[in-house]
Amino acid sequence: MKTLSQNRCFGGTQGVYTHSSDATGTQMTFGLFQPEVATGAVLWFLSGLTCTHENAMNKAGLQAWAAEAGVALVFPDTSPRGENVPDDDAFDMGQGAGFYVDATEGAWAAQFQMESYITKDLPEIVFAAFDLDDTRQAITGHSMGGHGALTLALKEPTRFRSVSAFAPICNPSTSDWGTPQLTAYTGKPAAHDATLLVRGGATLPPCLIDTGTADQFYDKLGTAAFATALIDTKSEATVNLRRGYDHSYFFVSTFAPDHMAFHAEHLA
Amino acid sequence: MKTLSQNRCFGGTQGVYTHSSDATGTQMTFGLFQPEVATGAVLWFLSGLTCTHENAMNKAGLQAWAAEAGVALVFPDTSPRGENVPDDDAFDMGQGAGFYVDATEGAWAAQFQMESYITKDLPEIVFAAFDLDDTRQAITGHSMGGHGALTLALKEPTRFRSVSAFAPICNPSTSDWGTPQLTAYTGKPAAHDATLLVRGGATLPPCLIDTGTADQFYDKLGTAAFATALIDTKSEATVNLRRGYDHSYFFVSTFAPDHMAFHAEHLA
Repeated sequence: MKTLSQNRCFGGTQGVYTHSSDATGTQMTFGLFQPEVATGAVLWFLSGLTCTHENAMNKAGLQAWAAEAGVALVFPDTSPRGENVPDDDAFDMGQGAGFYVDATEGAWAAQFQMESYITKDLPEIVFAAFDLDDTRQAITGHSMGGHGALTLALKEPTRFRSVSAFAPICNPSTSDWGTPQLTAYTGKPAAHDATLLVRGGATLPPCLIDTGTADQFYDKLGTAAFATALIDTKSEATVNLRRGYDHSYFFVSTFAPDHMAFHAEHLA
Repeated sequence: MKTLSQNRCFGGTQGVYTHSSDATGTQMTFGLFQPEVATGAVLWFLSGLTCTHENAMNKAGLQAWAAEAGVALVFPDTSPRGENVPDDDAFDMGQGAGFYVDATEGAWAAQFQMESYITKDLPEIVFAAFDLDDTRQAITGHSMGGHGALTLALKEPTRFRSVSAFAPICNPSTSDWGTPQLTAYTGKPAAHDATLLVRGGATLPPCLIDTGTADQFYDKLGTAAFATALIDTKSEATVNLRRGYDHSYFFVSTFAPDHMAFHAEHLA
């Protein structure tokens, strides 16, 4: 692991690190915020389409609240990257659009192993290199990263004490933000659909969702299907619809303090 | 004036607007945050070298604190822009590097009128178009924008109730961040040097400075000269040196709540 940068931030350290990933076979870059007064707890933030490790790190404003709560933040990248990594002209396929699954199909299979990256590879690196408590983890994400947070929490039911998401894609097997990509990568969109996983009996940790009513991608998210699944399965969950908010980081940063407070309570 | 975007943010509205500027003769773009519960008070944020209206708007995290304080935020651009606007290969001259002065020299004179833009043109637009109180203004800025905040507050002693700056360039007539540019634009670097203006007897409103001890441009800022001028002139001022902080927005965002609290007190 190599340190690319470290900036003091809210009394702690916002670092950016790079490492060679076994899962993707590429160099991967991630951000990690360490609060000055650390509890050891960790919140993973999975980002959305087109993002790198940088967007949320620079624009979500989470460090202010994480510093208060004593919670570390990890900001992974959203896909493998590089000249030798397959890509697509569309912004929602290929590099920047890994969808947090392990690809099994075609040219994607070799490197698009983002589920393994987030669930095995990066945790190994992070818990070895930093003084963090792997028994106190929570996960959140935005848009495609909300899909990632929900599905990985459902696939690893004992890892995360709580899960949240900002404007998550939560029923991708019925959306053009999900079906084409998950089909291309895995051939099985339904296997990576948070709504279907909840309906199939997977255990969801306590869950908080915020979605704006002015989200320009409202119809792609599948919020109603997911909320219905939560209600039908009597899951512990809160779904907030926020009047007038859209899909941007102005929305994410507004509700970042609520999400941090929610996770801090479960991580305590 | 044309609205380019509006995003709901911390209960208020983060807008981006464009207008034809008499001062620069170009289209100029600015950001304006209006809090939901507004007091009418306004804080101007002047950005640093290479920045547009976007950097601080996206990365300083000021909206969280401005919403609480009921203070509007204006994020101007740092220079005129466009194909027909002169530029320079260096990042610290030309477009993105207006230094908040009215150029009188050479090709710069026609459009690089950033002092007039910030002191006359943009206020006219902003106070006509939005419900804001021009008797309650404060100003802040980062780096070159800190230079702008300090010098414009000194040049307009009754306009701003308070002034602050993050890692300001505050003695530019002795720095290569200031002397070459102010010479090229105006021929008179000393006329736009906050330290010399204070020493010359200009009135400074209550003033707050934060600068990081790990600032990678520490020696270009002239902090000691400015602090000495403040001390010698018995100005009302606080200069905070922040251990380990650098020149980045991670530094700015960390101390943004302090600066907002400082201005809110004076704007009340």
